[in-house]
Formats: sequence, structure tokens, C-alpha cells
Amino acid sequence: MSKPYKRLDKNDAAVLLVDHQAGLLSLVRDIEPDRFKNNVLALGDLARYFKLPTILTTSFENGPNGPLVPELKQMFPEAPYIARPGNINAWDNEEFVAAVKATGKKQLIIAGVVTEVCVTFPALSAIEEGFDVFVVTDASGTFNEVTRHAAWDRMSQAGAQLMTWFGAACELHRDWRNDIEGLAALLSRHIPDYRNLITSFDALTAQK
Amino acid sequence: MSKPYKRLDKNDAAVLLVDHQAGLLSLVRDIEPDRFKNNVLALGDLARYFKLPTILTTSFENGPNGPLVPELKQMFPEAPYIARPGNINAWDNEEFVAAVKATGKKQLIIAGVVTEVCVTFPALSAIEEGFDVFVVTDASGTFNEVTRHAAWDRMSQAGAQLMTWFGAACELHRDWRNDIEGLAALLSRHIPDYRNLITSFDALTAQK
Amino acid sequence: MSKPYKRLDKNDAAVLLVDHQAGLLSLVRDIEPDRFKNNVLALGDLARYFKLPTILTTSFENGPNGPLVPELKQMFPEAPYIARPGNINAWDNEEFVAAVKATGKKQLIIAGVVTEVCVTFPALSAIEEGFDVFVVTDASGTFNEVTRHAAWDRMSQAGAQLMTWFGAACELHRDWRNDIEGLAALLSRHIPDYRNLITSFDALTAQK
Amino acid sequence: MSKPYKRLDKNDAAVLLVDHQAGLLSLVRDIEPDRFKNNVLALGDLARYFKLPTILTTSFENGPNGPLVPELKQMFPEAPYIARPGNINAWDNEEFVAAVKATGKKQLIIAGVVTEVCVTFPALSAIEEGFDVFVVTDASGTFNEVTRHAAWDRMSQAGAQLMTWFGAACELHRDWRNDIEGLAALLSRHIPDYRNLITSFDALTAQK
Amino acid sequence: MSKPYKRLDKNDAAVLLVDHQAGLLSLVRDIEPDRFKNNVLALGDLARYFKLPTILTTSFENGPNGPLVPELKQMFPEAPYIARPGNINAWDNEEFVAAVKATGKKQLIIAGVVTEVCVTFPALSAIEEGFDVFVVTDASGTFNEVTRHAAWDRMSQAGAQLMTWFGAACELHRDWRNDIEGLAALLSRHIPDYRNLITSFDALTAQK
Amino acid sequence: MSKPYKRLDKNDAAVLLVDHQAGLLSLVRDIEPDRFKNNVLALGDLARYFKLPTILTTSFENGPNGPLVPELKQMFPEAPYIARPGNINAWDNEEFVAAVKATGKKQLIIAGVVTEVCVTFPALSAIEEGFDVFVVTDASGTFNEVTRHAAWDRMSQAGAQLMTWFGAACELHRDWRNDIEGLAALLSRHIPDYRNLITSFDALTAQK
Amino acid sequence: MSKPYKRLDKNDAAVLLVDHQAGLLSLVRDIEPDRFKNNVLALGDLARYFKLPTILTTSFENGPNGPLVPELKQMFPEAPYIARPGNINAWDNEEFVAAVKATGKKQLIIAGVVTEVCVTFPALSAIEEGFDVFVVTDASGTFNEVTRHAAWDRMSQAGAQLMTWFGAACELHRDWRNDIEGLAALLSRHIPDYRNLITSFDALTAQK
Amino acid sequence: MSKPYKRLDKNDAAVLLVDHQAGLLSLVRDIEPDRFKNNVLALGDLARYFKLPTILTTSFENGPNGPLVPELKQMFPEAPYIARPGNINAWDNEEFVAAVKATGKKQLIIAGVVTEVCVTFPALSAIEEGFDVFVVTDASGTFNEVTRHAAWDRMSQAGAQLMTWFGAACELHRDWRNDIEGLAALLSRHIPDYRNLITSFDALTAQK
Repeated sequence: MSKPYKRLDKNDAAVLLVDHQAGLLSLVRDIEPDRFKNNVLALGDLARYFKLPTILTTSFENGPNGPLVPELKQMFPEAPYIARPGNINAWDNEEFVAAVKATGKKQLIIAGVVTEVCVTFPALSAIEEGFDVFVVTDASGTFNEVTRHAAWDRMSQAGAQLMTWFGAACELHRDWRNDIEGLAALLSRHIPDYRNLITSFDALTAQK
Repeated sequence: MSKPYKRLDKNDAAVLLVDHQAGLLSLVRDIEPDRFKNNVLALGDLARYFKLPTILTTSFENGPNGPLVPELKQMFPEAPYIARPGNINAWDNEEFVAAVKATGKKQLIIAGVVTEVCVTFPALSAIEEGFDVFVVTDASGTFNEVTRHAAWDRMSQAGAQLMTWFGAACELHRDWRNDIEGLAALLSRHIPDYRNLITSFDALTAQK
Repeated sequence: MSKPYKRLDKNDAAVLLVDHQAGLLSLVRDIEPDRFKNNVLALGDLARYFKLPTILTTSFENGPNGPLVPELKQMFPEAPYIARPGNINAWDNEEFVAAVKATGKKQLIIAGVVTEVCVTFPALSAIEEGFDVFVVTDASGTFNEVTRHAAWDRMSQAGAQLMTWFGAACELHRDWRNDIEGLAALLSRHIPDYRNLITSFDALTAQK
Repeated sequence: MSKPYKRLDKNDAAVLLVDHQAGLLSLVRDIEPDRFKNNVLALGDLARYFKLPTILTTSFENGPNGPLVPELKQMFPEAPYIARPGNINAWDNEEFVAAVKATGKKQLIIAGVVTEVCVTFPALSAIEEGFDVFVVTDASGTFNEVTRHAAWDRMSQAGAQLMTWFGAACELHRDWRNDIEGLAALLSRHIPDYRNLITSFDALTAQK
Repeated sequence: MSKPYKRLDKNDAAVLLVDHQAGLLSLVRDIEPDRFKNNVLALGDLARYFKLPTILTTSFENGPNGPLVPELKQMFPEAPYIARPGNINAWDNEEFVAAVKATGKKQLIIAGVVTEVCVTFPALSAIEEGFDVFVVTDASGTFNEVTRHAAWDRMSQAGAQLMTWFGAACELHRDWRNDIEGLAALLSRHIPDYRNLITSFDALTAQK
Repeated sequence: MSKPYKRLDKNDAAVLLVDHQAGLLSLVRDIEPDRFKNNVLALGDLARYFKLPTILTTSFENGPNGPLVPELKQMFPEAPYIARPGNINAWDNEEFVAAVKATGKKQLIIAGVVTEVCVTFPALSAIEEGFDVFVVTDASGTFNEVTRHAAWDRMSQAGAQLMTWFGAACELHRDWRNDIEGLAALLSRHIPDYRNLITSFDALTAQK
Repeated sequence: MSKPYKRLDKNDAAVLLVDHQAGLLSLVRDIEPDRFKNNVLALGDLARYFKLPTILTTSFENGPNGPLVPELKQMFPEAPYIARPGNINAWDNEEFVAAVKATGKKQLIIAGVVTEVCVTFPALSAIEEGFDVFVVTDASGTFNEVTRHAAWDRMSQAGAQLMTWFGAACELHRDWRNDIEGLAALLSRHIPDYRNLITSFDALTAQK
Repeated sequence: MSKPYKRLDKNDAAVLLVDHQAGLLSLVRDIEPDRFKNNVLALGDLARYFKLPTILTTSFENGPNGPLVPELKQMFPEAPYIARPGNINAWDNEEFVAAVKATGKKQLIIAGVVTEVCVTFPALSAIEEGFDVFVVTDASGTFNEVTRHAAWDRMSQAGAQLMTWFGAACELHRDWRNDIEGLAALLSRHIPDYRNLITSFDALTAQK
């Protein structure tokens, strides 16, 4: 009954950030806004830290959905940025799929707003094409817990792996010795409890 | 490990609304009533918008279960309407199954009250007969979260896909360019946060 | 230890709707949006039903706060409408206070967004000037339960009475015999459970 | 800073059961229905056990509000029963007030549906007339926690004492020695955890 | 992708009630006690109504676990009653398994306390032996939601179907016409909201 | 508008532990059992640490209510122990009141099971006699949040101060310098998060 | 029954930040850490924006409680900083009280960790000395909701006004015209939903 | 459709305790700390009671993560203790895997902090190598419910069995008669409700 462990590999993973737009974010009510903002920025920070190819996409930026949140735009000035003219499922957009395939990666880390549409649809499409899909659940938001649970069930049944940004960071990093300072700084920027541990630790060791 | 993505297709889908009756609605306590009413009407609105064949059915209208909620009746004046004489599982009613099969569709979008009976039973029967079943979880209600979770687990294990009315609308529409005005109007009628985005957007663009 | 019962009197009450603006509504997270929208419209409906003088006010309509929700504007085409140029507390705006005093009423029914600012500030100011203040808690929204509870405590300690739109409707109406049809219609439009009772009742009595 | 303790006295208390009607109960969503039904019946049981004069009243029994729940009617076949022709506040009904005053009691134990109307209105009226009011909070129900908290705040500020049926039973009984068997039987009928204690105890003592 | 629908059949089902003992019930904290008591009695009532062979079993009745709740004992005076001398998994007790097999049924409806032990263990054992297992989730209780979710996952993965007493009743009954009065009475005894519907309905039809 | 701050004074305070009995504890469902047990033992620990006169009382130890929890009995082998023969309100028991008055203290720290009876009744009686009452809310338990909130409101309106065991410990201690080791040990035994801070701190300072 | 409205005045208010230390923050569990961190920094930001005299104080920085969170230290490099040698109630520390009085302000805005000790104790002491106390509830944290509610009740009964950082900012600012840019920037830094409104607004107006 | 029941066998199981460190515990917010501490110690107690080979491992003890909680260290003075120099997934550490394999057991009982990393990673690795993995969910903690549910889904999909310490204890013990006293003592130390049952039982039987 052994089952292979498909784990994230920083050399084979790309990040897809789907529709984190200023207007759409007002629809997200299954995660409190301070926490959600932090999770999304943490995922962006993670993608940069591990130098993962990252693709940004939006839907109707000039309409009520609003522009991509500026912090993400600033984090990835060079990233492929596909402003979809109308496709709801990003994977229905040829330019987007081309960008994904151009990365040459087989593992896709996906997050977006809202979970049951902007995340689930491309996740199911990518699985169909043979990619390994890792959903960053806590950087993906939706209307309420009912819609979240339904979306998770659909993706899980299809074979997507449900992750969180912290789990993804740890699975990508593998070993603290690869860069202790760097990972600690990443965690400290986005986990207040962890930052407090470091603050206390540093204060104490400085006293010595 | 690729898995085919069975997605809703507006040319191959029918909607089954099971037992949304005025009396039975008093049993629904896993979703707050203002939200639940909105979700049910949104699903009806969606069915009309996409011109999906829709079938209404009720159980014992003249008894304590009460009549179908009037808004649904008005939305679908021409729809097959099967007032079941006693079958609890709508699929045990030949007239109902005949109506379903008469649509010629292979995808069934099901919602009803209560989830673990009026939705789950016909969902499992339809799967057994080879239909693809999509449950609209948020237009289906039941007594509490325990009964909901048990029902979801049973349907998910059998292969039903758990959706929401919003996810279904987006999956059916595929591309905003098919009808921007129409979809926006549908969403605006049933998602207050989305309506607010449009209100603000329209006010600002009108100022120009 | 008897204490006088200050009850709402439809001949001595005015309604103040403060800052129910499309943008600000995205800040409201202590009440689910379907329910909140319904509560606000119910309060407007109530004000019209009882022909209570009603005053609308907004803050910075042309900025990010967005315009007043259109339904309220349409409900009260003749109402005083004070688009405040900058005062956060509506009571700091002379035009607003003049409009309130022009009603000649001593009982003020207040609701708004967000509770701890747009409702609490004018409520405390009005109490200071000797008005009787009735807060419609469920047509007032804010960030979360902590902010709501803090705001309620501050208003309650100052002598405001915490009400809901349904409680206010009942206290204003006093006796069903004043207009059975009218009140039932008002309740039916905004309480799904009540509407269901009426639907079942009407169906049964029609059968006779 | 001492403050007199106004405690329930079985020789000076009457019970008012306001609008526990089959239709209105479908509006109660702040207490789960199995628990609420038990609480209401427990309060009725308590009133009979302590032989407290009890007054039943309803509003529009023949309309959608529905009849008084049959169990209460059966518990109090001789009690004054005022089917109010239209007064929302029971205290606005002269017959009801006359029945209350005819009891000769100064302490009123009130419960009803819904809390912010059917309980709060007569509670505030009774306080105004100098009665001591004890609200049985858990045998009173309403739409949600927001409406409950607002109602409680209004009654508490006016001087009502917020109780529960169990607290009322204990305060009325004062001393187990007055009737150990009787009180234990009352509690056992309505508190499953207590019944279990007694079941285990009896089994063990029977073994001796 | 069709999948057979294994549905409850009143001619092929037996009920196993495992360790609903007065002491153990104090461990149940994932369902509120009034509701849990009602669910357990509803399941017993259902078993009697459908004349399903029912087996009672307990663990250490004479110790702290306490006796079987008396209502169950009274409901099934003739049922096999296996007071296990020590086996935690009832299926490890030969007498219990013999009683199950003596029923000649292939469908087992199981409920008990606590879910992750007294229900899960025999459920997994019975599945291993080829029985179809239906867990009555809401008549099974445990310490908290974490323990419940873990137990459900384990049973669901093994192929058990998660039901509720109401879902089981409906699936067993199939058609109201088999006995309208009987099923309505069963539901009315255990679902306050349904009883209210019937009360209102009967009152109205009596008026005719 | 200044108001005197009545603060706990270790030279003027006594502790009353009311009905923490093994049977009654099964009724406590508003605080999770691991936490509640810890809170009760923490309060006992605190009483010993500050050498506060402590009085134990129980109701019907030999019946279903069960014996005092053994840990409390062991903590206070010399304390007055009043096994009340029947009085529900401990203050109705002359022996208990005599024991309280014999302490010569004017500040009473009260905790017990259940909150709305065993705590509230003696609290209101003690206030009436001029004592300052401090309720240790988190070492007092009851059926659910509704019963807790009603009890808190009644005590607060009467002038009781709502505390917690940690707040009481800090108010009694006043200054860490009175005994750093002792207070840290007390907190460490009952606050896992605090213990963890100390563990990490000690480990780090030991490394120096 | 009019009651004066004591409102925050930026010319008469000082801010007291009590014990926001890296170790103690691990005790805060009534507000989620991302939100709590944001609230505390927002309060600091507010204090600087309105140029309110601010006083920092800590308890045992060199022990397990840990150092003040570095952000606060950096925000207020010139502020009085009282590292208390042992007083639990900051008001028991003469240096702290002297610093408060040296501000010459009569309104004290207090926040800290944990609410029932580090906030409540100095709040009650300051009220006793005639100060007007405004508690910033959402920048104050504690163990759980029970401890928070108990602390709020105690402070509210003593006359403290329960605020939030956003309410305080609005009450201090009075009129947007005093500085539209500044206030918008403050809110935008700490309210993600508000930032999104501004982002969308700016994008749209830039398009013109 | 029968499926083999892989049940815990005390002769074939080992326990892996991963990263229960004083610092990391401050990150655990999905289980309340009193309960979590109890669950972790219960699991340790269980491991000793059943004499299961137990392996301790930590990550960066000398940094902010802090030392292993001392109670665990004291419980297992002889256990293999692998202080990993940097591997985040314990299974990436050869010494750890060697220690696991040295036990000769095929069933691995795993718990740790945080769930989605320190538990999930080695669980998935061990499954890949053919071990049977049993996760003790309630002795494993993480940031919040979203992260917990995502982690559970990932492990469940891979074939891990989700257990709790109590379920594991019962499955390992099989039959009370193996050691009634011992198991009762284990449960009594860690389940307050069970301890209360025993306390009451012992008191009653002692009276005989």
C-alpha cells in the first residue's frame, strides 16, 4: 500500500497567482483580511525567495474587479503578466498556458481569488494535462466556509494537493542549512509568533 | 496521474430543484435564511440565464411540507413540475426520471431541501445510472453542520462534484465575452459585494 | 425601582441613515452581506411604511467611500440628503443637525456604517442634546465582533437603546389591527421564515 | 455599596408565557430547536411544580403565527389564556394586564418568542408599573445572536434580571429538603447530564 | 464512471447500538446534550418503527461507565444484549458477532459512544468481513470536533457510509405511501420544527 | 466622575469554593474540561500561595452530585468544609456564613458550579450584606454561553466584579518583587504558554 | 436624561502602551496574531500621526516576558520608557504616573497585554484619580474570550470607554478636511479593505 | 467491497514525537493550550504504558524554536533523541530513519508541531517506504483550522489513518481485561470527565 510522496521541488515548481485584484478581494470572507493579505504577500515573498518562475494573471482589470494588488505587481516586475480579456478559467487562455509551459516546470503552485473558480478551474485543467498541482489554500479566498469546503473537495478528489504557504516554504527549502538566515527572515516577516520568538532569542543572546 | 476534468457545459446540463417548499425550509438551519433564500433564487436565475432545462419537483405539497416557494414557480412557468405522490427519492418517481431523460442532458445540477435526503438520494441514483452529478451545495440546506458534512461525504465518495451556484455560473459561462452585461447583471442581483463594486465603478466612470 | 419605558412612537420618531455607501460596505464583516443588505433595506422599507421623516447622509461620495447604495436613494427621493464635506461625526455638520431638528421629532432611530464611528458618534452627540436614541444594531455594520461589542457598550452606557429593525417595526406599529396587510407585507419582504409561514398559510386557506 | 438581593419567591411569583406559537417558533434561530423545545417545556414544568399562577397569551392564532404549542396548552388547562386580537405588546392588552394583576404577585417570570418583541415589550411595561421582572432567557428565542444581545441589553438596562429556567427553579426551591424527590424529577426530565448522574447513582446504590 | 448506489433496505438492515451508557455520555461534547439525547432516542424509535433487528451492547456496566440509558433498554426488551466483559471493539466479542450474524442482514446501521472507538472499531471490523456499514453520525458522540473529524475520515476511507438518523429513516421508508401516519409520527416526535409544521397544518385543516 | 478602585487585597480576602463536585462537573459545558480543570486547580493553588482563608462547601455529596473533586480536598485539609444538608444558596446555610464571617475578611473571591446558581446566589447574598464580591469567572462553569452571560449580567448589575484566576493572582500579588520565584512557579504550573517562555528562557540563560 | 459626550480630543489625550512584549504576546489568543499585530502597530501609527504624547512601559524585559516589540520601540525613540522593576499595575510605579501627569493631558488612551491585568489595573487606577480612560480594545489582548469579557465588564462598570483604534482615530481627527491625505494613508496602511478601495479608486481616476 | 482493517498492534508499533519544542508551541493555535498540553502528555504516557519504542526528535533546539518540552524528555530518558542539524522533514535525516527502522516496527504513530510540516512530511515519506502511518491528530498542532484541514486532507489522501490519542490507546489495548487498573489510571490522568466518573464511582462503592 505504499504511495509515492510527490513533494515540492524548488527546481521543478512554478507559481501561478490568479486574480488577486483589489475589487475581487472584497468578496473574500472566509479568511479575515489582515491574515489573508499577509498570506498572499507571504506566498509572493516565498516565490521570490526560492526564485520560482511566477505568473500573474487578472481578469477585467479595468472594470469593477479592479487592478492587481500593487504589492504583487511590485514584487514581480519581470513576471509574465496576462490580463485575460474574458476567459474565466485562466487555463482557457492560450497565452497563460503558454507562459506556464514556457517555465518548463511540472509542479504548479496555485493561489487565487475566488477559490472555487479562479483556483479550482485552472487546477483541474492543469491536472488533466498531467501537471502536479499544489493549492496554497490560505492564499486563496472565497465567500464563506461552505464555498471553500466544496472547492477543496472538488480539487482534492481530482488529485490536487492542499498546502499552505508555510508548508510550501518548508517543503521547498528541505534543510535549514541551505540558508538559515534567509528562511528565518522570510518566516519572521509573515508569522508574528515566530518573529516574537526570534526577538526574544536575539535579545537574550545579545545579553551574553 | 492525470485525471479528466469534467466541467459543466451549458449545452449538456439540466437543473433539478428538489423540494424547496415553504414548510420544509423551516428545517434548514445550516445556512442563515437570508443567504439561503438568495442562493436558491440565484440558482433559479442562473438556470434561466443559461436556458438550462429545469425540472421542479415537490413532495406532499398539500400537507405540512407546504407549497413550492412561489418565486421558483414563477421563474419556471413552463418547466416540468412533478408533485410526487409519495416517493422520497425523486429518482424513484418514473415521471421525474422520464422528465430528466427527456432533456437529453448528461450533466445534472441538483439542489434541494434537505441535503442528506432530497439531494443525496437522487444524486446517488443518477450517478448509478451514469449521469455526471454536480451538487449546488449552497442552494441545498439541512438541519445542521453534522448532517451537511455527512451528506457531502456520502455524495463525494460516490463521485458527485460539490459546487456552488457561483462556481456553476462561472463554469457554464466560460468567457465573459460571451455576454458581459448579462453575467454581470446576474452576479449583481445576488452578490451584494459584487453589486457594490459595480455601483462604485459606474459612479466613477459616469463622472468622467 | 420602577423605570419609565421610553418606547418608540411613530408620531415622534425620525430615521437617520448614515454612510451606507457602496465602498464602505466592503468594510462590514460582522454581519454576513446577504443578511446585512436585507436589514438595511428593511429599515428603509420600515421608514417609508411608517412615514417617518428620514435623513440620508454620506461622507466623501466621490472618493473611495463610494456612492450611497442606490436602493436607499430611490426609496427616499425627497429626503434631506447631506453629503458631508468632511465631518466624520454627522452631528458636527450643521446642515445635518438642522435637518434633524426640522423634523420636530425627539426620538432618533439611527443606523450606519461603521457602527463605532458613523453610528456611535452622532448617537452620543444626540443624547447629549437630549434626544432619545434608538440604535438599529442589525442595520449597522463594522469590522468584526470586537469592534461591535465595544461600540455597543459605549452607546449603551450613554443611554442609547439597542434595537433591531424588526423590534423597531413592532414597537412603532403597536397593534396589528392598525394595518394587518401592511405590516405582514413588510415582514414578508424581509423575513424569509415569515414569508414561508404566510405562503403555507395562504395555500392552505385557498384550498378551503 | 450593598445592594438588596431581589430573589424569586415562590409565594410572590407568576409566570407569563408569551407567544410560544407553532409558526413563530420557526423564527427562532439563536437556540438550537431540540434545546429550545426542552427549555420551554422545562419552564412550563417548573411553573406547575411550584404551583405558580401562569398566564398564556398568543397573537393571531388563526393566522400564519399558528397555534400555541399543544404541550403548553395541555400543561395549563385552567390558566388564563388571552388570545390577543392585535396588540403586539401583551401589556397593551387590558385583559392580559388584568390577569396578571389578579394573581396578586409582584414578581413576573417572563419568556416568549421573539425575545426583542414579545418578551422585551411586556418586560419594560411591567417594570414601568413597578413589578420585578425576571426574564427566562433560555426559554425565549429570536432570530440570531445580534437580536438577542440587543434585547438583553435593553432589558438589563431597564432593571430586568436575566435568568434561566434552571436558575429560576433553584432560586424558587431554596432548599432541597423542601422536596428532594420532586426537584430531582424535574431536573431529570430536562437535563440529560443530570439524568445520567441519577441513572448511574441509582444503579450503583441498587447493587448494594 | 457510474457507481452502484448501496441504499438502505429495511429487509436487509440491522441496528447496532454500542455503549450508550449513562457514564460514558458525560464524555460526549461534540453534540449538545439535548440534541444528542433526542438523536439517540430517534434512532431507537426508528429501529422499532421499521422492525429492524437491533443489538445492544455495553462495556463494564457495573463500573464507572454506568448502565445503558434506561430508555434504550425499555425500547428493546427482547433484543440481544451483550454486556461485554472487556473487549473494547465489540466485534472482538464472539457473542456480539454471533448475534449480528444471526440477524442474517448484510447492512449494519451503527451508532455509539464514543465515535472514534465504540463506533469506528466495529465499523472497520464489519467492513473487513464484507458487511455494508452505515454510520449514524448524529447518534454517535465524542469529545470534540477534532476527534469526530478524525474518526469520520477513517471510516469514510474504509468505505463506511456516513448517514444521520433522519436520512436513514427516509432511505428505509422509500415512499410516504407505505405509511404516512407512521412516518409523520416518528418525525414529529423527534424534529421540533417538523412537529410545528404539523401542528399548524392540523389547526388550519381543523378550522375548515 | 472618578470612581474608587476596589482592588483585591491579600490581607482582606477570602476564597469560597462552591460545589466543585465530581458529578456536577459533568454539567459544565461552557468551558472545555481540560481548561476548566486547570482553572479550578489554579484558583486553589492561588489561594494557598497567598495564604487566603478558604472555605469549601458542597451540596449532597452522597447523592448524584458526587464528592468534592479530590484535589481540592487535598489542597485544603484544614479548611472549613460545609457539606450543606439542602440549602441551594450556600449563604442560606448558617454554618457557611459563620465560617465566612469568622475569616474577618471583607473581600470574597467566589467560584463554583454552576455559575448561575452556586456562584450567583451567594454572590448576591454577600453583596446584600456589604461584602465586596469578586467572581472568578473562569473557575466557574455552567451549561452553555447563554446561561453564563445571563448569570454574569445579573452579578455585574448587582456590583460584583468579574475576574479570572490570573487577574486575581496579579491583583493580589501587586509587585513581582514580593516573590518572583513563587509567582512564576504558580503561573508556570497553570499557563502552558507561560511555562514555555520560562523553559526557553532557562535553556538560553543556562547556555551562557 | 441627557448625558455629556466625553469625546477624544487630540489636544488633551495621551497614549499608554503597556507591556506589548515579545514573550507576553504568545499569551494572546483572543485575537488572531496577524490582526493583533496590525492593530497594535496601527495604534502606534495613530499616536504618531496625531502627535499624542506616548508612554511605553514594560515588565521584566530581561526575563521570560521578553523585550518590547521592536517596531514600537522604533516608532517612539523619544518617548518616556519605563521598564518597571516589578509593579504589575503600571500605575503603582511612581515614575510611570509622573510621566503620565507630565503630559498634562486628562484623557488616557490605554492598550496592553494582557487585557485583564496590564490594561485593566492602570485603567481603574487612572479613573480613580479622575482621568478619562479610553481603552483600545483591539490593541489589547488576552487568553480567551472569557477573560476578555470579564475584563471589559470590570472596566465598563468603572466608567472606562471601550474604543478601537479605528474609532479613536476618527474621533481624534473630527474632520477629513484637517488632512485628507494623512488620514487616508494611515487607514490604508492598516485596513486592507480600505486600501483596496483606494487602489481601485486611484486606478480608475488615473484612467480618465 | 470488503477492505482490510489495519489496526494498531502494540507489538508492531513505534511512536515518533516530532518537534514538540517550547518555542514552536507558541505557533499552535488550532487547539487550546491546556488541552493541547494534556494531549501531548497523554500520548507520551500512552507510549510508556504500552512500552512502545519511542523516538524523539527536534529541530534547532538552541535557536528560537527552543528546547523539547521538559516533561517529554523526562518521560523518555532512554529514547533515541535526534536533534536534527537542519532537515525539516525528519525522514530526511538518516539517523532518524535508522532509529525508526531499528525498532523493527511497521506501524508508526506520529505526532508533532506543526501538523502540515513536522507531521505531514515524515508521514508521507514513511508511507512511501511502506510503513503504516497513524497520525495522532490531537497531539499535533498548527496555526489554525485552515492549515489543519489542508494537512489532514493531504495525509488522508496518501493513506495515513487519522487517529487521536484516546482512539490509539483503545485500539492498542484491545481488551480491558489485559489490565483494568492500568488503563483506567491512564485515562483518569488525562480525561477530566472520566476521572470524575471514577471519583464518583469510588466514593459510592466505598460507602457500601
